[in-house]
Amino acid sequence: MPRQARSKVGILGIPFSKGQPKGGAEMGPEILRRAGLVSRIKRFDYQVVDHGDIEIESIPGDKPDGNVKNPRSVGRANKKISDKVASIVKSKELCLNLGGDHSIAIGSIHGHCRAEPGLVVVWVDAHADINTPLSSPSGNMHGMPLSLLVKELADRFSPVEGFDWCKPCIHVRDIVYIGLRDVDEGERWIIDQFGIPAYSMQEIDKMGIKEVMHHALKNLDPNGTRPIHLSFDVDGLDPTITPSTGTPVLGGLNIREGQYIMEELANTGRLSAIDIVEVNPLLGSEKDNMVTAETTISVIEKCFGSKRGGYYPASYVFPSL
Amino acid sequence: MPRQARSKVGILGIPFSKGQPKGGAEMGPEILRRAGLVSRIKRFDYQVVDHGDIEIESIPGDKPDGNVKNPRSVGRANKKISDKVASIVKSKELCLNLGGDHSIAIGSIHGHCRAEPGLVVVWVDAHADINTPLSSPSGNMHGMPLSLLVKELADRFSPVEGFDWCKPCIHVRDIVYIGLRDVDEGERWIIDQFGIPAYSMQEIDKMGIKEVMHHALKNLDPNGTRPIHLSFDVDGLDPTITPSTGTPVLGGLNIREGQYIMEELANTGRLSAIDIVEVNPLLGSEKDNMVTAETTISVIEKCFGSKRGGYYPASYVFPSL
Amino acid sequence: MPRQARSKVGILGIPFSKGQPKGGAEMGPEILRRAGLVSRIKRFDYQVVDHGDIEIESIPGDKPDGNVKNPRSVGRANKKISDKVASIVKSKELCLNLGGDHSIAIGSIHGHCRAEPGLVVVWVDAHADINTPLSSPSGNMHGMPLSLLVKELADRFSPVEGFDWCKPCIHVRDIVYIGLRDVDEGERWIIDQFGIPAYSMQEIDKMGIKEVMHHALKNLDPNGTRPIHLSFDVDGLDPTITPSTGTPVLGGLNIREGQYIMEELANTGRLSAIDIVEVNPLLGSEKDNMVTAETTISVIEKCFGSKRGGYYPASYVFPSL
Ligand SMILES: [Mn+2]
Ligand SMILES: [Mn+2]
Ligand SMILES: [Mn+2]
Ligand SMILES: [Mn+2]
Ligand SMILES: [Mn+2]
Ligand SMILES: [Mn+2]
Repeated sequence: MPRQARSKVGILGIPFSKGQPKGGAEMGPEILRRAGLVSRIKRFDYQVVDHGDIEIESIPGDKPDGNVKNPRSVGRANKKISDKVASIVKSKELCLNLGGDHSIAIGSIHGHCRAEPGLVVVWVDAHADINTPLSSPSGNMHGMPLSLLVKELADRFSPVEGFDWCKPCIHVRDIVYIGLRDVDEGERWIIDQFGIPAYSMQEIDKMGIKEVMHHALKNLDPNGTRPIHLSFDVDGLDPTITPSTGTPVLGGLNIREGQYIMEELANTGRLSAIDIVEVNPLLGSEKDNMVTAETTISVIEKCFGSKRGGYYPASYVFPSL
Repeated sequence: MPRQARSKVGILGIPFSKGQPKGGAEMGPEILRRAGLVSRIKRFDYQVVDHGDIEIESIPGDKPDGNVKNPRSVGRANKKISDKVASIVKSKELCLNLGGDHSIAIGSIHGHCRAEPGLVVVWVDAHADINTPLSSPSGNMHGMPLSLLVKELADRFSPVEGFDWCKPCIHVRDIVYIGLRDVDEGERWIIDQFGIPAYSMQEIDKMGIKEVMHHALKNLDPNGTRPIHLSFDVDGLDPTITPSTGTPVLGGLNIREGQYIMEELANTGRLSAIDIVEVNPLLGSEKDNMVTAETTISVIEKCFGSKRGGYYPASYVFPSL
Repeated sequence: MPRQARSKVGILGIPFSKGQPKGGAEMGPEILRRAGLVSRIKRFDYQVVDHGDIEIESIPGDKPDGNVKNPRSVGRANKKISDKVASIVKSKELCLNLGGDHSIAIGSIHGHCRAEPGLVVVWVDAHADINTPLSSPSGNMHGMPLSLLVKELADRFSPVEGFDWCKPCIHVRDIVYIGLRDVDEGERWIIDQFGIPAYSMQEIDKMGIKEVMHHALKNLDPNGTRPIHLSFDVDGLDPTITPSTGTPVLGGLNIREGQYIMEELANTGRLSAIDIVEVNPLLGSEKDNMVTAETTISVIEKCFGSKRGGYYPASYVFPSL
């Protein structure tokens, strides 16, 4: 059974949805908890610490900063997230963040960096989420988290209100994308300009998920020693299996590819923080929400040692006469 | 961004359904237009010319010619289609035909041939549609278009009423099949007898879609110089994603394979005409129709430069400070 | 057209469901017959003999034997099944058993062994079904059939009430698994301990179904001469395509992989018995039941010569002028 270096899991709920305009993403932690995520992880003999939900402050009159919507709300929440994630990772827990929209990755990766400055980021998503405040077509911060975190883009836009605490902490080449299929012009320009390894659905169809994972991990960290931050947007999966999400795009990862990605990440033993984001129960029927939660849990549990071929602990004794 | 040699797209609606017995296929152009097909193509900087819908004449008392049903109706409509497609292709437009049932490919390929005699045909379909009037089990002409077009079968059946204008214009080896899974005995005999490259779902499962496309294009045109006619029956895709169609067959292409096929065809830069056929909104629920149209458009737009990994025009300037 | 050595098919209904707690699996034969299974097989020029349904005796007061539930009911039914299957296989019919839950494989494989002692077993299932009475977490016999049949486990548990007639007849290495994704600790221990070739969904994602089938058949019988017993649990397929079953598990074989497995088994010409089990119409909606039956039949007919690329008999004459 592959085990992560960290033998404790710290679960952090982040009921935040101001990084995009649709209500409901703040209910993600509740939905995933109610569907049994915590007990499913407990099956794998991790010591599980539930840190509850971060308290989100409402910031009235949060005017756009140029193109950027809700900048102070997103900034304030992410400062809190950064502090909390840094503390969880420093306690040697594998930090599992339940979003919330994808803007929470700003705080999550920032905090993770404070504890593990050498981390790499695996970004599973239909979208690249690396627009700058100037390139973003929408102004929604869930489409910008990576641009605020990478050093190479810092001189391309002015500081955003509410983010004075947030200094870029990773390089563009510390990121790998898996599952892209709706990428803006500016985002593609950044990917090409800086050579970010990006495995869109086209590459996955061409190479197969096994080769993609092999190359993705090799590209990101040839020596295989750096801690891994997995930022998992459920819209990376196909909308037939995660329908309850804000920006679904046809033709996504199927559940087995999702499981395979997680199995391979688990096999590295280097996972140290995970975000699960963009589950939005207000956008689906009750059945959609159940399907979305079931799919998400069945994929995420593969990060914690669940193996499709089965496993038994080293201490296992087969019951005989 | 791959661009076709042709920088204009000419859209032609063909509301014709007498090539098979079920009403509704004549509503295909309307459904696809209403779902936004035209504006989706416009996003890719083609100059789009909408030629409207061909007017279909009703031919009363159109008795079967032997086994063949509605021969004069199918013949008359296809003569018109041939004229119109020839004229569109001659104007250097990439001709996009919105069917209608698959019998419209008679006129569409015939007209395309008049403008581009060296064309090759990529036939994406669950069915081979190459029965002759004598081998056809049903007598429906949407299962026969290719037999009327290929020279090698001309001496195997008597001329069909209404088709005196239509001389065979392609060779059997100018065709490649992708997606077959419901093939009649006579059709398999023809495929074997004349060595038509045929990639059924079994070959796709065995080789993977990447190898299939590589071999299909190589087989059809080793030098890669001939214009391509894509005839795309939506029943080539799996019925879970294109349910609103007349002869669905389990186990079809998934949406990503559909997209991949189109991306590879677009990469050739040689697409000069495309048929989209067998969308039938009377055979599905409203939700089925929406899914069918969404799927079809998401696949077809890959012919026009939509890339899952994103793209930016050569003239793109990244917005910076 | 690949033909099995056996040119007759003997169909046996086994309306038995006491190997697990949910009512409804006893309706499997009825559902599959009503959906047209028999006539679908007749299309392929087999001589089809329908042996009707086995009569199941009710055994009142069938107390558990230790952990094992309904031991005498399961034992009595399987004795009958063994006798009947042995006689059908001895008459040179390809024996097609319509379950019933998976406990019926005890009698089916036992009877098959009496007629064909050199058989090998292909077990397509989400589950390994090889728990012993001592390792089983549930006590349901549909999770134990293989442990009662393999010689290597005989000394690991006490004889089960009702099974005095049943001596182990196969070796663990006569089994290959395809489709596993929910395997108990003890089962994984057995697989590892005895080196059973097991292709879980993880291996299928890694190797692809073509390589899996190649290795599975090679592993099981390098010379390719032994009769094949296919035991096909419909829960091996994904629950989206076989929803009406008792223990569905996300992330299963898709319909094309199911079809491919059967095509490859048919290509061996060595199929001599087939179980179809765990169809349970009481667990799904009417639509679910229709989908489950359609899927199952479309997969199973590939065992009898249905080819996705089409076929024609050697005697076929193409109709010409
Ligand atoms: Mn995202
Ligand atoms: Mn996304
Ligand atoms: Mn067709
Ligand atoms: Mn078709
Ligand atoms: Mn089973
Ligand atoms: Mn099972």
